[in-house]
Amino acid sequence: MVETYVFGHKSPDSDTITSSIVMAYLENEMGNSEAKAYRLGNINKETEFILNYLGIDAPELLESIEDGADVILVDHNSPAESIDNLENANILKVVDHHKLVLETSYPLFLRFEPVGCTETILCKLYEENGVEITKEIATLMLSAIISDTLLLKSPTTTEDDKVAVKKLSQIAEVDAEEYGLEMLKAGTDLSSFSIEEILSLDAKQIDFKDVKSIVNQVNTADISEVMVMKDELEDGMNKIIEEEGLDLFMLLITDIVNSNSQVIALGNSAGLVEKAYNVILKDNTVLLEGVVSRKKQVVPIMTENA
Amino acid sequence: MVETYVFGHKSPDSDTITSSIVMAYLENEMGNSEAKAYRLGNINKETEFILNYLGIDAPELLESIEDGADVILVDHNSPAESIDNLENANILKVVDHHKLVLETSYPLFLRFEPVGCTETILCKLYEENGVEITKEIATLMLSAIISDTLLLKSPTTTEDDKVAVKKLSQIAEVDAEEYGLEMLKAGTDLSSFSIEEILSLDAKQIDFKDVKSIVNQVNTADISEVMVMKDELEDGMNKIIEEEGLDLFMLLITDIVNSNSQVIALGNSAGLVEKAYNVILKDNTVLLEGVVSRKKQVVPIMTENA
Repeated sequence: MVETYVFGHKSPDSDTITSSIVMAYLENEMGNSEAKAYRLGNINKETEFILNYLGIDAPELLESIEDGADVILVDHNSPAESIDNLENANILKVVDHHKLVLETSYPLFLRFEPVGCTETILCKLYEENGVEITKEIATLMLSAIISDTLLLKSPTTTEDDKVAVKKLSQIAEVDAEEYGLEMLKAGTDLSSFSIEEILSLDAKQIDFKDVKSIVNQVNTADISEVMVMKDELEDGMNKIIEEEGLDLFMLLITDIVNSNSQVIALGNSAGLVEKAYNVILKDNTVLLEGVVSRKKQVVPIMTENA
Repeated sequence: MVETYVFGHKSPDSDTITSSIVMAYLENEMGNSEAKAYRLGNINKETEFILNYLGIDAPELLESIEDGADVILVDHNSPAESIDNLENANILKVVDHHKLVLETSYPLFLRFEPVGCTETILCKLYEENGVEITKEIATLMLSAIISDTLLLKSPTTTEDDKVAVKKLSQIAEVDAEEYGLEMLKAGTDLSSFSIEEILSLDAKQIDFKDVKSIVNQVNTADISEVMVMKDELEDGMNKIIEEEGLDLFMLLITDIVNSNSQVIALGNSAGLVEKAYNVILKDNTVLLEGVVSRKKQVVPIMTENA
């Protein structure tokens, strides 16, 4: 029987999936609880690359938990991004690098640091608790840090992330640059996805003050390859706007090689993008130069201008 | 110029004051920031005993901070218990052992553990970061753990608190039992306080669902010594109930030697105490046997029955 459910956010990315595995392993090694990693949605291509590289299975899909179940959250703390009945769970621990929105009626273990990736924090937790970082664990950690920081080039990157990458590359015995670029490129392969799937791959519900929004980010090595689908993408976005009653849907098509993002913005509040970045949308789209981080370069500036 | 303000909650207790000093010292030793400890209210008798024992001054009183100031919160995370203009501050870190109520619009450093005392967490942070725990720092930490756990007898006590007390006693070169009892007794001396002061010494605003309440706790070595003031205490409580529009004022008079609490309960929702503990108030008061912890033995049971 599973005693503790460990999971990251919906629309799982590589940090969420690897952190679930790495955190569950840590719990078990420390003898804290019988912990098992789960996922709340489909694995993306980049994560698939990582798991295939290591020859390990994806965590099981978790659709609901019983009331009172013990859970550990990684890489998120917002109930909106978590399992649907989180309010009835007993949250034992949270390890995360996002802003704080969770409320609890009881004290719990929290480890948050404003670093680029949850795995950077987990790397410290292993060290602090004297748990050996195996080659496999190191590869999982390293992959997620490369993913979240776009090979340490994103403005979310901190000194701690750099230190972790250096250390983990050695344990994992991989060239971070070479492996990382291959991994990131694997994540940009959209060929097998429907429009609906592309629009939910890395979609986050974020309210910029009163502006109810979804910001979806898709990585690519070539923006034009994604823009050929612009009409279909817009149809899909408009459908979601209507269904969810959104004021804004931002699709960020992020060029991981040149570190820019083409944004497609739809909804009654699309003008907020123009105001926030001092740009003019043409046919609902514009290039945001140097913008690669939703957390650092979208959320604060959009919130400020909302 | 002060770069980082470090402070605990209003109505400061020994954990809040010592943790502010110990956290500021850690920040400075780690070279993270020029940090300085502050207090948000008057020092209680127990804390005075600790500071006198060490021959050190109380932190400066902090009445407000400038907008955008860098702050570190210890032993609390509720804006209601913090400095009034906290919403305009830049919270760098929070080290705490209470339930989670804070929200932020940015990622930050959080270290929460469900242990008996903030100092137990700080003791780990010193070790993890290789900062030496001096004799003075050890005495501050030890004193707070003894205070919060009532010499490791409160149900809030965890294994981590016990481990810390053992280790810190050695560094501080004190007999924890002997020093601790003397310290706790010093905290029960109410002779110099007015009724108004007694009622605000360790008062927390806590809403049990919709029941707007204040729960104040006063430690004593002899309940009857406090109960001789019952009429004056009730007058003072009724005045606060009216001024603050409270539904309930609970005064817990906690016998630190025998581990019981006499409660005086006033307000329209005083019946909630009878329901929660299955007792009958006589002249607004009753002995709650074995109850010493507001956090573990009052907040959950009162909330559940509200």
